[in-house]
Amino acid sequence: MTDARFADWMRDVQQRTEVALGRTLPPNNVVPDRLHEAMRYACLEGGKRIRPLLAHAAGAVTGAPPEVLDKVACAVELIHAYSLVHDDMPCMDDDTLRRGKPTVHVEYDEATALLVGDALQSLAFQQLAEPGLIPDAGRHIEMVHHLAIAAGSRGMAGGQAIDLQSVGQMLTREALEVMHVHKTGALIRAAVCLGAQAGGHCHGDVLRSLDHFSRRVGLLFQVVDDILDTESDTATLGKTAGKDAENDKPTYVTILGLDEARRLSLELEAEALELLSSLDGRADRMRELTRYIVHRRF
Amino acid sequence: MTDARFADWMRDVQQRTEVALGRTLPPNNVVPDRLHEAMRYACLEGGKRIRPLLAHAAGAVTGAPPEVLDKVACAVELIHAYSLVHDDMPCMDDDTLRRGKPTVHVEYDEATALLVGDALQSLAFQQLAEPGLIPDAGRHIEMVHHLAIAAGSRGMAGGQAIDLQSVGQMLTREALEVMHVHKTGALIRAAVCLGAQAGGHCHGDVLRSLDHFSRRVGLLFQVVDDILDTESDTATLGKTAGKDAENDKPTYVTILGLDEARRLSLELEAEALELLSSLDGRADRMRELTRYIVHRRF
Repeated sequence: MTDARFADWMRDVQQRTEVALGRTLPPNNVVPDRLHEAMRYACLEGGKRIRPLLAHAAGAVTGAPPEVLDKVACAVELIHAYSLVHDDMPCMDDDTLRRGKPTVHVEYDEATALLVGDALQSLAFQQLAEPGLIPDAGRHIEMVHHLAIAAGSRGMAGGQAIDLQSVGQMLTREALEVMHVHKTGALIRAAVCLGAQAGGHCHGDVLRSLDHFSRRVGLLFQVVDDILDTESDTATLGKTAGKDAENDKPTYVTILGLDEARRLSLELEAEALELLSSLDGRADRMRELTRYIVHRRF
Repeated sequence: MTDARFADWMRDVQQRTEVALGRTLPPNNVVPDRLHEAMRYACLEGGKRIRPLLAHAAGAVTGAPPEVLDKVACAVELIHAYSLVHDDMPCMDDDTLRRGKPTVHVEYDEATALLVGDALQSLAFQQLAEPGLIPDAGRHIEMVHHLAIAAGSRGMAGGQAIDLQSVGQMLTREALEVMHVHKTGALIRAAVCLGAQAGGHCHGDVLRSLDHFSRRVGLLFQVVDDILDTESDTATLGKTAGKDAENDKPTYVTILGLDEARRLSLELEAEALELLSSLDGRADRMRELTRYIVHRRF
């Protein structure tokens, strides 16, 4: 499915994201050391790094320097990592396994998990707002503003709240889409748009195409996630499988059925690829990444 | 103690902060409505607004426009409000009363309190990073970067972690100071520095004087807080009095004794005022505010 050069590129982005995160996160021996150790535990050695991959693929379209994309990718990944830490806490999903390891509140304690999430969110903004990162400071501020909206109550955190209110309810497909547009869609969109804005060749049409693309990919990612949650086992996923069904949470599979969810994923894939059709060969990584997101096994 | 014009100024800043927060926070009827209602509950109608007062007083020194200071003040106050919501949660201080009302996790639930804090932090950065807020975009980015550091693991969140580790321990005065420099000091410093940077007349010497001043005021605020926590009753404070002693947390009063803590507060007041001595009449609000912080009764 995946050609060798794409696989190499993916591994390269994952490795450089790991290095960049390792440099951004304060070392274990800096006070408060337990907090810093737990922040590193939450972020390093794990995750598919889908958002960093999307940021780098979008940045390739606009000629963004890879070192700048590393910082953008880290910022988005730190927001994602913080959301997982808080989402796993007992008052939310109460999950004990994440990326094949005990969750932060299990490995450390609840108070530490709370502060880890809080501090990772601050670190994301610290990373993205590094003075001089984007030569055009006006565009730089717009990027920080975009990330803040994507993370907040009209974006990711709002999606978590809608998710909480939806437990045990039979949602329509439209209501489920509203939830996911917030919960996962906003941050995936930010990864694509910020990656693109990090480049010099980021003109209106290109940004608009990538923005529309990112909305389809965000939904696509969630539909595939729901399918995998039904089909896979815990060992493959590295997180507790079947958890959504067990928690009585609506998913694309529970609402549409498995076959229809699979059909929807292929439809969204085609729509997303079509939105890239006006872009040249520099969007090839984005095309390959889209196919990877649909056909991944975990 | 407080002259009438200063009292009017203080009330004016408190009122305009309330209005600005009310406009910044999404309305109750916007989805997810319960989250937005709880965010408003956590931020509105309460608090001394010490950080907004400091931001406006610092902005007066550098000629910052009051409408810009409103946004800066809101951003800092939103970070402060989020930290209170999370700090009150059962896994942290487990407090039930704040600003004379039930805490967010009591009035709503724990999951909502978690998301309220998360979303308030994002909103703070959204507010401060509003494109065009500061005409000099390069300085604007520096201000956002400063707030992120102040909120994070080397600032406020780090202070909470040090606080957690200190429960039941007899700290030295130096160790207590390290905790408070992080826990309350970093954000108070941000309030002063960001307020000053919002003005056009923000030259190196002025910013340096205000920065040194803000470090003394941050400690001063905490010493007075510890004294009031010992002396006052719950009704006056609007939060549970004597909580730190009950929780076996080290304070300036438990470490130094009440008399010595009072002496220290007067010493810090004198040092803070001395650091303003090179500034002209535009720093008068800052001088009056310093005296207010020492001699307040709640």
